[in-house]
Amino acid sequence: MKRNNKLPGKTIERLSQYRRSLLLCLAQEKTHIFSHEIAALLHITPVQVRRDIMLIGYTGTLRQGYDIRELIDLIGEIIDSQDGLNVAVIGLGNLGRAILTYLSGKRTKLRIAAAFDINPEKVDKVYGGVPCYPLDRLQEILEKEEVSIGILTVPATETAGVANTLVNCGIKGILNYTPKPINVPPHVYLQEYDMITSLEKVAYFVKRNQQPG
Amino acid sequence: MKRNNKLPGKTIERLSQYRRSLLLCLAQEKTHIFSHEIAALLHITPVQVRRDIMLIGYTGTLRQGYDIRELIDLIGEIIDSQDGLNVAVIGLGNLGRAILTYLSGKRTKLRIAAAFDINPEKVDKVYGGVPCYPLDRLQEILEKEEVSIGILTVPATETAGVANTLVNCGIKGILNYTPKPINVPPHVYLQEYDMITSLEKVAYFVKRNQQPG
Repeated sequence: MKRNNKLPGKTIERLSQYRRSLLLCLAQEKTHIFSHEIAALLHITPVQVRRDIMLIGYTGTLRQGYDIRELIDLIGEIIDSQDGLNVAVIGLGNLGRAILTYLSGKRTKLRIAAAFDINPEKVDKVYGGVPCYPLDRLQEILEKEEVSIGILTVPATETAGVANTLVNCGIKGILNYTPKPINVPPHVYLQEYDMITSLEKVAYFVKRNQQPG
Repeated sequence: MKRNNKLPGKTIERLSQYRRSLLLCLAQEKTHIFSHEIAALLHITPVQVRRDIMLIGYTGTLRQGYDIRELIDLIGEIIDSQDGLNVAVIGLGNLGRAILTYLSGKRTKLRIAAAFDINPEKVDKVYGGVPCYPLDRLQEILEKEEVSIGILTVPATETAGVANTLVNCGIKGILNYTPKPINVPPHVYLQEYDMITSLEKVAYFVKRNQQPG
């Protein structure tokens, strides 16, 4: 059992993806699954799947494979926080609202506690069960709601300023969806995602496949 | 010069990210940049930056570093399609609309040619310069507009069906933002992204940093 060691980021990503697929299988009333089935769902090798699942101390049976419910629970023990973590979405444009809808009720251990915007028409309303506060109450609400993670979906011009405020408020992790990279001190965990990069990667391989040779 | 070899996906992602940062520097009227500056912006090592840029056949000068304009153009030659590629967004919920806004005018070589939705209130309107068509005209419009890449932002229940239609229409690449993984034949390039995975990764490292030891 290596449950108490810190696992690499890539392993955590895959465990999260395994759980996502397993939850879909469970919804289809499947009870057991083989590593090669998980691998096919995620376009990776069965060896990779077996290695990851062995790493978290689980083994299936040769005849039936993994028990889906047990594996989901075990992945939860590894990657979820026992007491749950509170999350805030900063910026309720289309992307911010998409994220609220998307995350609403998906993971019980990650609670979207608050949303923020500067638009007075959005403030004091509730989106997907989450109250929207004015941006100038960021510090107050983050403290009150004990928010650990901020999802940044503000316009690029506001990115740096809001990120600094989050850091000053003691945020522990930031997921940056704005088109502008940010800098945070080493004690804050940062994950950045830019759609342009994903799209350019697809475009590159599409182009290359079209070309002869 | 290795420009004609197919570069790995990870290299393409970094080149795309370099260009993103370089465009921001250029907007701030900076003309030259050192590898360690690019590295700091993207939280990677200067060695990695120099290796990638050497790989595409470019070198800076010791005194001034890289010429930003030249490097942007060169990255474009490598990762962009000469004639451009047409993209369609399928599903105009919050996420689909966020993507249209986000990509609008960002990269001249990737043109968002069409959007699709089943909601009659959205159909025949224009979003961020992009016309929205009814989903049942998918095949006709994809052919007419010569669309190579589909961005999937439909509800999870529709994912598999729409993905199959895209493949049957001869799509070359799919960027899947729905919470449901898909299967495509080998000639279609697939990139999937799930926000839950990114958020769970941030949560894992936030939790681990909070724990003593």
